[in-house]
Amino acid sequence: MEPIGVIHSPYKDRGEAPYQGHKSEAISQIEVFKEFEEGLQDIEGFSHIIVIYWFHKSQGYHLLVKTPWDDIPHGLFTTRSPHRPCPLALTVVELLAREKNILKVKGLDAIDGTPLLDIKPYIPEVDERWVAKSGWLAGKLGKERT
Amino acid sequence: MEPIGVIHSPYKDRGEAPYQGHKSEAISQIEVFKEFEEGLQDIEGFSHIIVIYWFHKSQGYHLLVKTPWDDIPHGLFTTRSPHRPCPLALTVVELLAREKNILKVKGLDAIDGTPLLDIKPYIPEVDERWVAKSGWLAGKLGKERT
Repeated sequence: MEPIGVIHSPYKDRGEAPYQGHKSEAISQIEVFKEFEEGLQDIEGFSHIIVIYWFHKSQGYHLLVKTPWDDIPHGLFTTRSPHRPCPLALTVVELLAREKNILKVKGLDAIDGTPLLDIKPYIPEVDERWVAKSGWLAGKLGKERT
Repeated sequence: MEPIGVIHSPYKDRGEAPYQGHKSEAISQIEVFKEFEEGLQDIEGFSHIIVIYWFHKSQGYHLLVKTPWDDIPHGLFTTRSPHRPCPLALTVVELLAREKNILKVKGLDAIDGTPLLDIKPYIPEVDERWVAKSGWLAGKLGKERT
């Protein structure tokens, strides 16, 4: 597995990054390595893209996790904790502009220097589902981090 | 990067797998390795989960790709082609049932034996966006593969 680029962001370490990046107004720059630039052709036509990256500062994990949204620990795979056996991160971001191999995006919570693994188009017809049950998270997401 | 499980599916090779897995009614079984089973606690409360896996049969890639939905080639990162520099796959699936470390899901297009990398809860408040522009894919997704 090799990165295809690197993320430049205003967040210098994990403590600065927001818990819910999509609520952030901060702008990040995604640098796709020059050798892959041709693969970005036509991407400026999309308002939103899926960014997959590596939580490179993540170390170790617990299978039961206490999050800011509940006092009770829950299974790691029912959370978006960065501390995972395979620390992959995935965020849907707004694509503001492209200049050659640089994408300017909003709503990304990655810290500066994060390795970029993949970019996919966000396609509502493919990526959205009508959700019947949101498990322990139901009704909690409106709440701010405590 | 180490897999956390393996996907058992009715699709024995890529030719059998559907182009749009979410339209499939086929049932797959996600086997999470026993050592990670505790991380699934409470997952049965969620109707939908995000499955991240490895396109392990993918070999090589082209930066410009012709898809079944258009006659014109487009940048690889504006497509969901499995042939990518870092062949990560991501699908939102319906979680039908859990038995211990096995998740029964609908809407997955992975082929049998696919390495599982991560599972995350699908959270509409986090994962859905109001899309203003769908690029070259606009209006094409309703069309069937030609």
